[in-house]
Amino acid sequence: MPTNYEKLIERVNELDDLNKAAALLSWDREVNMPRAGAPARIAQMTTMSSLIHRMSTADEMGELIENAAAELDGAPYESNQAALIRLLRRNYADARKLPAEYVARSSAVSGQAREAWVRARAENDFEHFRPWLEQVVELCQEMADYYGYEDERYDALLDKYETNMKTAEVRAIFDALKAELIPLREAIDAGRVKLDDSIVHRAYDVEKQKAFARYIAKAIGYDFERGHLGTVVHPFATSFSRNDARITTRWYPDFLNPSLFGTLHECGHAMYEQGTHPDLARTPLARGTSLGIHESQSRMMENIVGRSRGFWQAHFPTLQSYFPEALGDNTAEDFYQAINKTQPSLIRVEADELTYNFHIILRFELEQAMLNGELAVADLPVAWNDKMQSLIGITPPNDAEGCLQDVHWSRPGFGYFPTYALGNLYGTQFYETAVAHNPAIAGELAAGKTDALLAWLRENIHQHGKKFTPGELVQRVTGQPLSHEAFMRYARAKFGELYQLN
Amino acid sequence: MPTNYEKLIERVNELDDLNKAAALLSWDREVNMPRAGAPARIAQMTTMSSLIHRMSTADEMGELIENAAAELDGAPYESNQAALIRLLRRNYADARKLPAEYVARSSAVSGQAREAWVRARAENDFEHFRPWLEQVVELCQEMADYYGYEDERYDALLDKYETNMKTAEVRAIFDALKAELIPLREAIDAGRVKLDDSIVHRAYDVEKQKAFARYIAKAIGYDFERGHLGTVVHPFATSFSRNDARITTRWYPDFLNPSLFGTLHECGHAMYEQGTHPDLARTPLARGTSLGIHESQSRMMENIVGRSRGFWQAHFPTLQSYFPEALGDNTAEDFYQAINKTQPSLIRVEADELTYNFHIILRFELEQAMLNGELAVADLPVAWNDKMQSLIGITPPNDAEGCLQDVHWSRPGFGYFPTYALGNLYGTQFYETAVAHNPAIAGELAAGKTDALLAWLRENIHQHGKKFTPGELVQRVTGQPLSHEAFMRYARAKFGELYQLN
Repeated sequence: MPTNYEKLIERVNELDDLNKAAALLSWDREVNMPRAGAPARIAQMTTMSSLIHRMSTADEMGELIENAAAELDGAPYESNQAALIRLLRRNYADARKLPAEYVARSSAVSGQAREAWVRARAENDFEHFRPWLEQVVELCQEMADYYGYEDERYDALLDKYETNMKTAEVRAIFDALKAELIPLREAIDAGRVKLDDSIVHRAYDVEKQKAFARYIAKAIGYDFERGHLGTVVHPFATSFSRNDARITTRWYPDFLNPSLFGTLHECGHAMYEQGTHPDLARTPLARGTSLGIHESQSRMMENIVGRSRGFWQAHFPTLQSYFPEALGDNTAEDFYQAINKTQPSLIRVEADELTYNFHIILRFELEQAMLNGELAVADLPVAWNDKMQSLIGITPPNDAEGCLQDVHWSRPGFGYFPTYALGNLYGTQFYETAVAHNPAIAGELAAGKTDALLAWLRENIHQHGKKFTPGELVQRVTGQPLSHEAFMRYARAKFGELYQLN
Repeated sequence: MPTNYEKLIERVNELDDLNKAAALLSWDREVNMPRAGAPARIAQMTTMSSLIHRMSTADEMGELIENAAAELDGAPYESNQAALIRLLRRNYADARKLPAEYVARSSAVSGQAREAWVRARAENDFEHFRPWLEQVVELCQEMADYYGYEDERYDALLDKYETNMKTAEVRAIFDALKAELIPLREAIDAGRVKLDDSIVHRAYDVEKQKAFARYIAKAIGYDFERGHLGTVVHPFATSFSRNDARITTRWYPDFLNPSLFGTLHECGHAMYEQGTHPDLARTPLARGTSLGIHESQSRMMENIVGRSRGFWQAHFPTLQSYFPEALGDNTAEDFYQAINKTQPSLIRVEADELTYNFHIILRFELEQAMLNGELAVADLPVAWNDKMQSLIGITPPNDAEGCLQDVHWSRPGFGYFPTYALGNLYGTQFYETAVAHNPAIAGELAAGKTDALLAWLRENIHQHGKKFTPGELVQRVTGQPLSHEAFMRYARAKFGELYQLN
């Protein structure tokens, strides 16, 4: 006779398999599918997600969870069993909070809003997108009300991406970050050092970029025996198991950064999933803790590792050998400076390591204002431009390069944006702890190696998958709650030296 | 209120979507998945197929079919509705004939038998595979008994691939083919003309092969806007809709034929599915009629089109421009002769257009003998070698190049092999009819074009998908049942001229 827990696991494994099959339909759409295949693919994805939703929210699922929970009563909090029950209870309760009518309507609006956004951005026509964004804001409000909240409405949405994190907590951290980061950025702009990034805009053969991307991905520890590199328009990472965690990249013939740092970024995500403990396989625990923690891993590989001096002292000669015409006359130091130039920027995805945070804080503040009805959608363009000026010091020349630049607001996904900046903060806080635990990590990195760092990440973060909330994890690992401090120490040291601020 | 037919269609569409998601899991495994991902992928595929089997065989499915059938009573035989009911009834009845215990056992044996076959072939050790093949034969016998049959056991298996075709019918056709094809092959071997195929074994850059494969696929009418070309070890075609029908190819740096004719072959399959009528979408009717009819389309593109003189008179200059070093000194006629050399061969997948049929007839006869208990598995190697000698005139030096060469017998799939040769016969019979209907087809082909041929195939074959049985289709299209005669007329004309037999 199977135990109640075994019965639950059987259903959990089935659902996880179906979720992976659904994820493959998405991955394949971006990587391989001819565009004409889209209508049939959408039907396939809709059928899969309806089926998964039906099975996940069935009364039977609730009974399986509670029967297993009763049987496990007393299992240690840190055990896989207890963690799985916690996660399943949360997911089950959440999934049942949204009425089917809402899910269908939200999906329909998102589809049309996306089309409207594409056209609005292409034609720099905010008015064309406005009515759709108004509906999206309403959908966010409804969703928050379905999920429920104690303190403020935005909490209900943020919680979907950073379990148990409160808006007030993020606000306090971002405010502290602003208070220190704005002066740092201003000091850099006012200083006498100007960095030159022209070398990354030279001609870079795409096939050679692909070969170098494979080289550098291997160098930081991405396991191609358990991975795959595909080409897409909008890069992402996805995994079908810890032994099949894939990355994607895009390639520009005249700009090296997107492929190079995009690859390192997606490797950080995929290495996280390659490192989840095998015992978590075929359950929803075999995932990153949260979007913010996931982003900490990608940003660490992209920035802390991939934009460090030691890393390029070690790897620049190889990069040079791939691109002798573009880089033959440059030094590793030239390259290090070029990839760390910081400057006011209009576009989030092109922003440097420091400025990027302002782009996120701006969106975080505007989302709350729209959600709470303090900012009418019609007034968004003006509010956007005002905040750009106060945070970054420039004003967009048009809405296409302003409030229309991101796809995210074409779906009811408020609460997602802050996780990008939280990732920067988690990442530096983790890295500082890692070096404190094992000083060899810094020495290795100065020689272009990441073995000790990856071993530490595997042990302290990756293996746990989604067993803990982000707050629990950061406390366990660093002994403190999340703050902006490690990031600011890192930023001051690195950019202070680069821009000779002392 | 939806009609009963609409209720049925909704379920049929759902099941078709799930089948496509399952097919993507398979396709991706061959094309993209890292090998380490296999165990998780097998779990995903098993979950999907169990779910599909459960839904397809549920009593509810039978009720949906019969309620819709009652509502449709009197719909014309040729209507999509009547054809769908016929197909669903057949599939439903068949799927319920196999007990779940049998399906699980068959799947487990096949998995282990495949591993044993890989090792047995690599080590030329038939004894290692023998006990597994014995189990496979027993599984075939059981399956035949579950499905049931009127005349002979093999009928039950053949029917899964060629609906309603009888073993006796295939035997009569193959016997007639042997009676005429053996003398033709002997006359060629005894003749004074020896063709030289050394030029296809020169150095062919793989990247250029890929580019030329795309060129030649487009030339015969494969629509890349609704397709995709991937690289695999064992090529195949698959479709996720008529607007996403994919091909795969393999590439050898020192042998042109596998990529060139493999591409044309898989294009033939994929063009068939690209041509199914849009009204059949998301139903099991949007497929080829049968394996044999499917193979008629692939063989037609590979051989009748792709190994014709006119086709290469038109396209050889382009091929030459891709490979000036390998082919710069050759003529289109040299190439035409090289790709049509016929000779006794040991390996089925490397056999020429004529000899290939003997490889199939041999397997067809041996399968029946094993199924009926007339041939013990232990005696297979001797029986194989005897038949090779009598049909093709050579004896394999070992079992690895003899009865261990194909993967097929590691699973209970007896009845599949004959469809390969039936494809050759259907293909020539269709082509002869096409030219009789529209003589411009032959003229176009002599100029390297296939537009009129493809239009005829779309109209007479592709659009119908799986609406008719293969026997019904061949009668509708050609006015006659399948026979060996068109193939022999084609073979005598083409090879008689090539080998100057008169």
